[in-house]
Amino acid sequence: MFEFTVTAKNSRTRSGIFSTMHGDLVTPVFAPVGTQATVKTLTPEHLKDINASLVLSNTYHLYLRPGDELVRDMGGLHKFMQWHKPMLTDSGGFQVFSLSDTRKIDDDGVTFKSHIDGSMHRFTPEKSIAIQENLGADIIMAFDECSDPNDSAYSEIAMYRTHRWAERCLRAKTRRDQALFGIVQGGVNPTLREESAKFIAALDTPGIAIGGLSVGETKEEMHATLDVVMLLLPEDKPRYLMGVGTPEDIINGVARGIDIFDCVLPTRLARHHSAFAPEGRLNMMNATFARDEHPIDETCDCYTCRTFTRAYIRHLIIAKELLAGTLLSIHNLRALIRLMEGIRAYIADGSYESRVPELLSKWSNNAKRGMGNRE
Amino acid sequence: MFEFTVTAKNSRTRSGIFSTMHGDLVTPVFAPVGTQATVKTLTPEHLKDINASLVLSNTYHLYLRPGDELVRDMGGLHKFMQWHKPMLTDSGGFQVFSLSDTRKIDDDGVTFKSHIDGSMHRFTPEKSIAIQENLGADIIMAFDECSDPNDSAYSEIAMYRTHRWAERCLRAKTRRDQALFGIVQGGVNPTLREESAKFIAALDTPGIAIGGLSVGETKEEMHATLDVVMLLLPEDKPRYLMGVGTPEDIINGVARGIDIFDCVLPTRLARHHSAFAPEGRLNMMNATFARDEHPIDETCDCYTCRTFTRAYIRHLIIAKELLAGTLLSIHNLRALIRLMEGIRAYIADGSYESRVPELLSKWSNNAKRGMGNRE
Repeated sequence: MFEFTVTAKNSRTRSGIFSTMHGDLVTPVFAPVGTQATVKTLTPEHLKDINASLVLSNTYHLYLRPGDELVRDMGGLHKFMQWHKPMLTDSGGFQVFSLSDTRKIDDDGVTFKSHIDGSMHRFTPEKSIAIQENLGADIIMAFDECSDPNDSAYSEIAMYRTHRWAERCLRAKTRRDQALFGIVQGGVNPTLREESAKFIAALDTPGIAIGGLSVGETKEEMHATLDVVMLLLPEDKPRYLMGVGTPEDIINGVARGIDIFDCVLPTRLARHHSAFAPEGRLNMMNATFARDEHPIDETCDCYTCRTFTRAYIRHLIIAKELLAGTLLSIHNLRALIRLMEGIRAYIADGSYESRVPELLSKWSNNAKRGMGNRE
Repeated sequence: MFEFTVTAKNSRTRSGIFSTMHGDLVTPVFAPVGTQATVKTLTPEHLKDINASLVLSNTYHLYLRPGDELVRDMGGLHKFMQWHKPMLTDSGGFQVFSLSDTRKIDDDGVTFKSHIDGSMHRFTPEKSIAIQENLGADIIMAFDECSDPNDSAYSEIAMYRTHRWAERCLRAKTRRDQALFGIVQGGVNPTLREESAKFIAALDTPGIAIGGLSVGETKEEMHATLDVVMLLLPEDKPRYLMGVGTPEDIINGVARGIDIFDCVLPTRLARHHSAFAPEGRLNMMNATFARDEHPIDETCDCYTCRTFTRAYIRHLIIAKELLAGTLLSIHNLRALIRLMEGIRAYIADGSYESRVPELLSKWSNNAKRGMGNRE
């Protein structure tokens, strides 16, 4: 169970297979985010069509609504949302720290106010595991504390707490069909990150997550931190870079040996009418596209690009038709999943390292806004 | 072109085939409404999956946004929205009268204010036909004036205007691949309706629409009006009851010889979290369904009912996830299309007339609200 087999390696970059109860994950992999047990505006059929293989859902949100015990009683998250491939849940920690106005952290756990109705709740490592066991994802996360990367003193406190909580999560865990990943913290301090990587690696969890990145640090700090951490992680465990990220972050992460990524970016951009395209990120609401008979991306194989013109998508946006969000989500997610498919092919033929500059140049275009984007 | 072949007949009820450039329509048929060149929240794939055969779109809305000339330049409505089966457009008259605050009717046409930006526009019979030719639906409508059914004096003026406008529409029409239907008006006055039915029938259009019903009159008035009109319409032309209606209206309409129906009810109910179900119309937001592991309707073959529980749909609604609207639209539309499939089977085996009480009793349940409905 939870074997990770590296199938190809170019320098630090690797491709592999991680086995779960709901099938094999071929890495590097990008996970669409289904916060509330649904990848916003898409059916599971849409997700299959874009070749999604791993879906992430959020412990904090599902605990509050509809409740993890309800999900358990309905047969677990896979059955509830009808996604029968691998799933991952986070620990709830990140949302407690980012969404709740009022929260009180102590060494035992966190007391927080619901962002929905203001009711008070408490998460501990044991509670996070109990919730994640009720939800039943294939990959679950240790309860961690994500610190401000620029506050070194707080990062140290949060890191030690994260380590103690990881040990408690391991002890609390009862299900054997879920892979619990420990989480490396330590802000952007290389000494802390080194200590954290060694500590979490020693716990011998079936995979290791890197938390506390893409939360306000610079790109250089993120890369330097990954360079420190990755050297210390075992080769035979998948590495998950939590909440990351943009296409450029993914390309750079893969180059440093990351295997799993997740990000809300593709679906969030879709809700804001933005589309990944060869000429850069496009604001599809722009008048430029009113009579554009081309698909968003001529080279894309997604349902949206195979079927509809930019003119039609722009019309749907202007007319406030919800189908616009569905069509853009399909395209944006497929664009990132195609990127991962391309990356895996390059790793398989040994060319990934040499392709990085070309990939970065192609996608850096999408960090900036393309023609027609006036968000 | 536009042949209508009656394939089965039970008393006044009939089943038939109407041939269009985009395929044959098997009647009686229910058309989902795609107001702005999209059936709200659904892809064309969803529409194919529920076995939709005719889609209606609105001339008034498409004229204002994105503009009929744009739709024409993009290859017409079928290509623009990627629906390659039969389509129908209304004349724009009904929306001009119902959506515009400010409108001035004269014998030549109507001047009105856009409900979107307040700009002034003018529709005449010739303009309505020009717009509908740009849109390119298979079935198009003569420009008509829909009167308050309870105002007999106004109904008479509106009826005569509708007749003169129908003649002008016929003269204005240039495309031969579109079937222009004349529209019978006359409120709920049997003398006016008789005169209108005779007049419109004499125009020898390839089909005839009945307008001005389901706009505030009683059910008895609707049925009495249909009884007068239907006797006077030719047997070899399809009859379209515009904007109707509820399942009960459809069952009663078929019993009186109606062939084509359209209504926003299924998708509008979906947006208000209501679902057609055997026990009556359900408000899926109700707490009753929080742990209900059954589909909306055990007997339904739609994607939603084959895949998801009531508990999951309720969760999506409570969590304000847009997928709820998509899943409920699929189910509600499929429920009406299944009703039509059943009706056609009963007509084919000669049992329709005898099944009407049973069908009405089954569906009257859905006029009322079922358990759990607190809209």
